[in-house]
Amino acid sequence: MPAAAFRPAGASDWPLIWPFWRQVVAAGDTYCYDPAMGYEAGQQLWFGSAPDQVWLVSEGSPEPAVALGSYRLGPNKPGPGAHIGSASYMVSEAARGRGVGRAMVLHSLEQARAAGYRGLQFNAVAASNVYAVKLYLDLGFTVIGTVPGGFCHPEQGFVDLLIMFHEL
Amino acid sequence: MPAAAFRPAGASDWPLIWPFWRQVVAAGDTYCYDPAMGYEAGQQLWFGSAPDQVWLVSEGSPEPAVALGSYRLGPNKPGPGAHIGSASYMVSEAARGRGVGRAMVLHSLEQARAAGYRGLQFNAVAASNVYAVKLYLDLGFTVIGTVPGGFCHPEQGFVDLLIMFHEL
Repeated sequence: MPAAAFRPAGASDWPLIWPFWRQVVAAGDTYCYDPAMGYEAGQQLWFGSAPDQVWLVSEGSPEPAVALGSYRLGPNKPGPGAHIGSASYMVSEAARGRGVGRAMVLHSLEQARAAGYRGLQFNAVAASNVYAVKLYLDLGFTVIGTVPGGFCHPEQGFVDLLIMFHEL
Repeated sequence: MPAAAFRPAGASDWPLIWPFWRQVVAAGDTYCYDPAMGYEAGQQLWFGSAPDQVWLVSEGSPEPAVALGSYRLGPNKPGPGAHIGSASYMVSEAARGRGVGRAMVLHSLEQARAAGYRGLQFNAVAASNVYAVKLYLDLGFTVIGTVPGGFCHPEQGFVDLLIMFHEL
């Protein structure tokens, strides 16, 4: 992914992210988000509040660049759970198969380490999302829990929801 | 717990709940909530939004009654995860040891069934909260995952965080 660059994103970058973000969420086959979520609710969810951070992966300069993906990183829980991070990743459909997801996970692990998190947790990985599961396992995550039938896939019906974890 | 009664609670009941709720949260030894959370943020968190439901356990009539506890029940995740419920329980310190927690968990299992949830999931049970863990196991929950060191206990330091589940 030599031509792509990571940069921190702010709410004003939402117009770049929303088109592919919306597509992923509307499909309803990977994320436990409301598939009908609108522009502003999505923006609020993605950017969250401090100390959450959002990154944009894009290529092409000068800007406006073409967005390839975006991820968010923040505490998985507040208070006594805030030392464990959680992250979510979205890849533009047009950029699939180029290693954008892998690059984002690796980047997020570094950012999570730098931010002082002691672990990175995914709360809801649909077992049917075999590409993501394989990628996370490849990058050192382990399955620490399974919610039986926790995900309602639009074609496959109820599939397991995996909880995955990477110590930092 | 013969003299106690369950009734649905609304935001206007927050003054009854807040005193013991705040005490539990401020202690920081059971819930992954911000221990410094204020009155309004707590109210917003506890009552959430539709289809979340909040129940109040109280004794004494006519009202004003003495609140013994309160619990909330709602979807654990939106969208494709919304068929699994999650619940949180708060018992007033003055009412401990009277079975209020057990009664609330049993009540919430019935309510979750009635609402059509296919399972009830707890995302973050501190392993140090031995009373709660034992109660949940007694009532048919199983540990489906463990986040190593996922909870920062004010005296015990990092303890495991358990993910528990009850099929409905």
